[in-house]
Amino acid sequence: MNTFNAIDRLITLLSKLPGIGKKSAARIAYHILNMDASYARTLAEQLACFHDSIRRCSECGSFTETDPCPICSDSERDDSVICVVEKPQDIHVIEESHEFSGKFHVLGGLIAPLDGVNPGDLSIGQLLLRIKRYNIHEVILAVNPTLEGDTTALYLQQILKEAGVEVSRLASGLPVGGDLEYTDRLTLSRSFRGRVKM
Amino acid sequence: MNTFNAIDRLITLLSKLPGIGKKSAARIAYHILNMDASYARTLAEQLACFHDSIRRCSECGSFTETDPCPICSDSERDDSVICVVEKPQDIHVIEESHEFSGKFHVLGGLIAPLDGVNPGDLSIGQLLLRIKRYNIHEVILAVNPTLEGDTTALYLQQILKEAGVEVSRLASGLPVGGDLEYTDRLTLSRSFRGRVKM
Repeated sequence: MNTFNAIDRLITLLSKLPGIGKKSAARIAYHILNMDASYARTLAEQLACFHDSIRRCSECGSFTETDPCPICSDSERDDSVICVVEKPQDIHVIEESHEFSGKFHVLGGLIAPLDGVNPGDLSIGQLLLRIKRYNIHEVILAVNPTLEGDTTALYLQQILKEAGVEVSRLASGLPVGGDLEYTDRLTLSRSFRGRVKM
Repeated sequence: MNTFNAIDRLITLLSKLPGIGKKSAARIAYHILNMDASYARTLAEQLACFHDSIRRCSECGSFTETDPCPICSDSERDDSVICVVEKPQDIHVIEESHEFSGKFHVLGGLIAPLDGVNPGDLSIGQLLLRIKRYNIHEVILAVNPTLEGDTTALYLQQILKEAGVEVSRLASGLPVGGDLEYTDRLTLSRSFRGRVKM
């Protein structure tokens, strides 16, 4: 169909994004047409320079515009605690919760031998360097409670204990607002083992 | 939070799109960062010229790059039948079904006195002009089976009958693959009234 050339091209491009199928892409494209043209232009400018303006922080490995990133260079943050995450977007979520005021470290993945991801592929060496250089006393592992997350946490625990730092991991259990009735067996089992004295 | 400047700006822009909240926007932004930079650049170029390359067809009122649009200027399509739709994206859906090979006409809305949309706000005059000029013999009303769609269909039926053309409307009833048990009363009532002899 050659009918809606520019619209079709935009729909095809948009439907490559995660969570956006052909129908949502069409809805978005027509929505943009009905919006003020300045929106499309601003979005275009933002996208055009997106990859050029973002690089990796040489300290923590997160995405940033400046190197080191604003978190690594923020002197008001507690630099004796490092929170270890799998990927940069995890930092985004933790920052929005305002629960943590230390530094971060991006592993760049989780140990998954079946997918060919071994400890050597993660930025563990850089983490150990930072621990030594900045006199870190606690490392919080904020990896997902999955098989790969558990494997990675166990591996890091051993290595970090040898480095002489305290190691903790985010609590796993019932989500707030969740319902016991609809909780899976594994989550329930974790919340029992990790039960908290009242 | 000033941490992820370019990323945050993109997230804010993306979350203005329909069906995309803050979380999906963040997911999309990080996904784009992980994709090849050429994708973001192509999408940017497409968006930058989007509004400039798209105009309204002076015949049918649809979005198009050329005026008249490819459908209106296609001599292989049946120009004795016009399918009347509310908005340009409806043409997109009908074209994808390959069910109709005539011409289209975009009303630009549906009659809704409570929202201040009266017959005079729709492109009904242009429709009557086209009927006279091109010797149209059938008009198919492809408006939604809603209160506004019904009102508009009734209004157009009267006017078009006076103009001496055959008027029909898309069948309304049970959706294919649907389940009687979960069908609402109104749809069921319509599918009874519109039942088909076998």
